[in-house]
Amino acid sequence: MSEQREITVQLIHEIRVQIGRKDTAKLQDLIDDLHVADIAEILEELSTTDAQFLYQFIAEEKSAEILVELDDDLREDLLADLTAKEIAEEVIDNLETDDAADVIGELSEEKQEEVLSLIEDKDHASDISDLLTYPEDTAGGLMAKELIKVNENWNTLQCLREMRKQAEHVKQVHTIYVVDNDDVLLGSMSLSGLLLTETNTPIKEIIKTEIISVKATEDDKDVANIMNKYDLIVLPVVDDMNRLIGRITIDDIMDVVKEEAEKDYQMASGISEDVESSDSVWAHTRARLPWLLIGMVGGLLGAKVIGIFDIRENFELAFFIPLIAAMGGNVGVQSAAIVVQGLANDSLKLDSIFSKLIKELGVGLLNGIICSIIILGAAFSLGYGLALSLTVSISLLAVIVFAALFGTFVPLTLEKYEIDPALATGPFITTVNDVLGLFIYFWIGQMIL
Amino acid sequence: MSEQREITVQLIHEIRVQIGRKDTAKLQDLIDDLHVADIAEILEELSTTDAQFLYQFIAEEKSAEILVELDDDLREDLLADLTAKEIAEEVIDNLETDDAADVIGELSEEKQEEVLSLIEDKDHASDISDLLTYPEDTAGGLMAKELIKVNENWNTLQCLREMRKQAEHVKQVHTIYVVDNDDVLLGSMSLSGLLLTETNTPIKEIIKTEIISVKATEDDKDVANIMNKYDLIVLPVVDDMNRLIGRITIDDIMDVVKEEAEKDYQMASGISEDVESSDSVWAHTRARLPWLLIGMVGGLLGAKVIGIFDIRENFELAFFIPLIAAMGGNVGVQSAAIVVQGLANDSLKLDSIFSKLIKELGVGLLNGIICSIIILGAAFSLGYGLALSLTVSISLLAVIVFAALFGTFVPLTLEKYEIDPALATGPFITTVNDVLGLFIYFWIGQMIL
Repeated sequence: MSEQREITVQLIHEIRVQIGRKDTAKLQDLIDDLHVADIAEILEELSTTDAQFLYQFIAEEKSAEILVELDDDLREDLLADLTAKEIAEEVIDNLETDDAADVIGELSEEKQEEVLSLIEDKDHASDISDLLTYPEDTAGGLMAKELIKVNENWNTLQCLREMRKQAEHVKQVHTIYVVDNDDVLLGSMSLSGLLLTETNTPIKEIIKTEIISVKATEDDKDVANIMNKYDLIVLPVVDDMNRLIGRITIDDIMDVVKEEAEKDYQMASGISEDVESSDSVWAHTRARLPWLLIGMVGGLLGAKVIGIFDIRENFELAFFIPLIAAMGGNVGVQSAAIVVQGLANDSLKLDSIFSKLIKELGVGLLNGIICSIIILGAAFSLGYGLALSLTVSISLLAVIVFAALFGTFVPLTLEKYEIDPALATGPFITTVNDVLGLFIYFWIGQMIL
Repeated sequence: MSEQREITVQLIHEIRVQIGRKDTAKLQDLIDDLHVADIAEILEELSTTDAQFLYQFIAEEKSAEILVELDDDLREDLLADLTAKEIAEEVIDNLETDDAADVIGELSEEKQEEVLSLIEDKDHASDISDLLTYPEDTAGGLMAKELIKVNENWNTLQCLREMRKQAEHVKQVHTIYVVDNDDVLLGSMSLSGLLLTETNTPIKEIIKTEIISVKATEDDKDVANIMNKYDLIVLPVVDDMNRLIGRITIDDIMDVVKEEAEKDYQMASGISEDVESSDSVWAHTRARLPWLLIGMVGGLLGAKVIGIFDIRENFELAFFIPLIAAMGGNVGVQSAAIVVQGLANDSLKLDSIFSKLIKELGVGLLNGIICSIIILGAAFSLGYGLALSLTVSISLLAVIVFAALFGTFVPLTLEKYEIDPALATGPFITTVNDVLGLFIYFWIGQMIL
């Protein structure tokens, strides 16, 4: 009943074998009733030449949509095999405007113009070329032009007639938008609402005027927050004059949410580029090296800090270097993570920076006091002597409070200057807290010991 | 045109003032045309008693939906103020089955039964009580009962008539499901498809039989992956006999995706409970303390490791303790994060554990060699002597390779035993790598120095 099929290692292997044998009949058999998303997954698993070979045998109505599902790299490779005419007729013609713009957007400017000029449906071409003018990370860059709109002065019968005309270009109807003579968005109607009313009811009587819309220039993350907050499945996009120019569906927003969450997560884990486990060894090395280098600079600074104080005299201070360094880093990351997440969810906008720092001071003091009491008891009972135990305990309290404040302050400051606050999580804050923590520790140690 | 209104500090302040004055007319004025999601946001900002006071004045058709939008704690407080009869008539009656089940699910079992018995619409009550039997984190726990289904043997005219009947209970129609006489799901039709065909076309001629569905027992994260992969806005849920029993819409899945991403992010940052920046100081302390305690145990173990070796003899080894400890932690977290993300996206399922470890070995070796060459040059030119520089360089290579392998191995092993692999990120892996890294460092140091 369903065309879902588990993509197994066996299936991939079978496809590789048949590509080797160039058995096109068998290949078509294997992928024929798979969903485009599944075929895309298979193509990603193959080598580029194998993927290019297999791609030729995919039915036209599927091949365009598969391109949309692919990773950028492979899509580029497959598009490179096609002429501008093929792209226009076989790919773009079968795609909705938003997906079409995404595909064309990746071509060279020269090829973009060539493809656009070869699209037969001139309305489609001009819609796509219009979408290409919006930056990718805005509402305009996310929206599609396909939508059903009706005039406020019509009645439901005219509506149905007009909708039948418009619906040819629109695969799935979510909402019917109501506009005035100047295309200004006035409200919406649900399709089911239309089915339930008499055929000659004026639109004005059944229009729902409470409608949430966004400007085309709105940031994609804000669009995601709005759709999420108001539980919207589709969101109309308007220009500065409030004229309806497109709509965004939630499946595109889901990708924004996932990408944003993944980016923050990777940042917090010290990965600087967007990599997936399937990427090459070299891509992984490149993505991870920058933060490791920062960590090394921190380590060298740490060595300098330890060098300032006479470690030979107070060699037992060395025992707790790992503890102090680790705790400063841990606390800093915790505080920064809470801020970054709050900023991403928009839930922090109502508090002042000052009130947030006060709160973190409270959390830091509470955690600091608990930890320093425990470490005092633990270190002393493990036989490290009262002076050293006291040093560790007092330093730990100072380090935890400092790291909590610093971890809160840095991302808030970055956000204020419109730098991604997620930069403050991960190795950067760990490293700074390591170094400063060591300084506090040795300074207090020298006074007490 | 839109009922969005920025929730400002001023608005919250104004509402607080009017609550103090008990000026109910002004209050109603202030919140009257706000969206339910905005009113929920305002209630969250107020004290519990203020929120309870304001909640009384919210129109009934909005008050039920606001409850659904609220955090669990406040919802519980507001529900505690209502009798079972009020909950049944004012809340549950105005909600779709999935939201109604969520609200009722939080009441005591006794009150649940009382509320269910007081719901006037017996079908609604039995639908809700049915939904309550599914665990929250499964497809059944996410689905709603409201859907439009038609029989395969009907024609489009019968369809429209039946739909008008069913549509009374269904707010938004996304897809029309086609079933056989035993309710077995056969396929779907789009509402627009129905509008475009002649009124006496048999359903069998326009049904789309390629339909993706899930079983009620499917895990919510898998449901999210399926809806995301196939770009679905609504997904039908079937029982073991393939009978249609409900549908899941993407806005509910969006919450699953966000929660999952936040949980992994907090885990990686050393936060063990789900906290938001607006939670109390005590909640934050509680959420962060467990990982700090693990970090302290690690620190004490580190002190023991350093104590095993004669630090007084080779006191200069102390200089690079922070560097070795930090790098082991950083590399381990990077590797673990890639695995956790791959597992969450299902993109890892086709590779074997062995091939992943081989790849990480490559990344670890590459990063390790680059870092160890740099640190050898840096340490030597900063005057730390060749023997110490060599010790640091060789240990760093060993630590990075080991941490990369360990960071990959642990989350994969946790996943195998069905423990959340995200546990392996954050302070746990940092701490273990700290301690083992120190051991490697001092061991090599003793041999060289």
